[in-house]
Amino acid sequence: MYHQLKGILRDKIESGVWKPDELIDSEHQLMSQYGVSRNTVKRAIEDLVQEGLLKRIQGKGTFVSLPKIEHSLGGFYSFSKVLRAKGIESRDVILSIEQKAALPSIAGYLKISAGTMVHELKRLRCALNEPIIFETSYIPVGIAASITEADLLDNGLYDLLRERYNVAVVKAKESFEPVLIDTYEAALLDVREGFPALLLDRIAYDVAGTPIEYCRSIVRGDRCKFYTELL
Amino acid sequence: MYHQLKGILRDKIESGVWKPDELIDSEHQLMSQYGVSRNTVKRAIEDLVQEGLLKRIQGKGTFVSLPKIEHSLGGFYSFSKVLRAKGIESRDVILSIEQKAALPSIAGYLKISAGTMVHELKRLRCALNEPIIFETSYIPVGIAASITEADLLDNGLYDLLRERYNVAVVKAKESFEPVLIDTYEAALLDVREGFPALLLDRIAYDVAGTPIEYCRSIVRGDRCKFYTELL
Repeated sequence: MYHQLKGILRDKIESGVWKPDELIDSEHQLMSQYGVSRNTVKRAIEDLVQEGLLKRIQGKGTFVSLPKIEHSLGGFYSFSKVLRAKGIESRDVILSIEQKAALPSIAGYLKISAGTMVHELKRLRCALNEPIIFETSYIPVGIAASITEADLLDNGLYDLLRERYNVAVVKAKESFEPVLIDTYEAALLDVREGFPALLLDRIAYDVAGTPIEYCRSIVRGDRCKFYTELL
Repeated sequence: MYHQLKGILRDKIESGVWKPDELIDSEHQLMSQYGVSRNTVKRAIEDLVQEGLLKRIQGKGTFVSLPKIEHSLGGFYSFSKVLRAKGIESRDVILSIEQKAALPSIAGYLKISAGTMVHELKRLRCALNEPIIFETSYIPVGIAASITEADLLDNGLYDLLRERYNVAVVKAKESFEPVLIDTYEAALLDVREGFPALLLDRIAYDVAGTPIEYCRSIVRGDRCKFYTELL
């Protein structure tokens, strides 16, 4: 019963019947509207709060969260372009840029020997000043000798690679799986530990099929939704 | 620190350095291998157990779970075909087939009026006798007058639609987002409540662009991983 009610409420949110930042119907109203017990209403709402679709404001009630940002998988995934197209202000926070010896797993993705030097670039991608994606990129130093914070403030990483290093990313392989936000990510993304998130892995290639970048992103599940058209 | 260790252990599992059903290194070994405290090792392992990548067996230790089934988003998503191609035995359990008046949200996806009769088809998709996906499909009765359990035992739903009703699904729009398994789904999918899962929504269309099916699936995050190639 509560599972069904949860589906109905989710649809109300996702279809926009309940608008972002709107106060939702009271427990009482939902009980009589759907002929269910208070306990059923409470559990359905609790689950949607856990997933971030609803939020509780102390002393005020339960409100609809901001809508999820929709990303298409139909073409190259570019966070800032998606947001720009929707007229949403985006911003990157660079957390660190370091040169490190590649761990075996990272080296494997980049088809280089373990221990080869790579840039490790940690970024927070923000929309409307809210952190949405925590991204860690690895680029072999052999491909791009230097990457600095200043380089990335004006341009995207791929623009920099193309313009300064004459390397064009033309293809990517992405995989994604649902995970739970851990303590470290929770602090960065400003959400509760155990929140649903997507782990997105991307390997980007140049025209010759050489891996240019390996990128691992943690995407907040309450703020992003992906879609694709299949033919 | 523990976040980094978790990444390293995840890579060991996903790259196959640690094999399915293998006993992993002891806490002590991991502590000295990576120069970290017992607490760090404990937390990293606990997180991977929570996500289902590792499993604890009472009195025996911590083992690597079965590998995730990889699904491509490059073409039509067919669970049984993916498994057949990998030589994995698959099976559908039909939980219910009912005719119902479409709720407004379902009607919206199918572009029919709310209250129009639809088949509601609930299935568990299993691999190696393990439930992996809980799927609920809606098909307008106006498109397929009758769908019975016997119809679906021999054929896929799309085969039935094509052969008996002359309706060919040629296109689909899918969206996916990470969610947490709820109590109802946990019982069906035989996992713990709060487990990471993917909510996959699909609308399938015929050649004229008429919606044929709306399908909502809950996919176990510990057993499935999706990938796609972007050009």
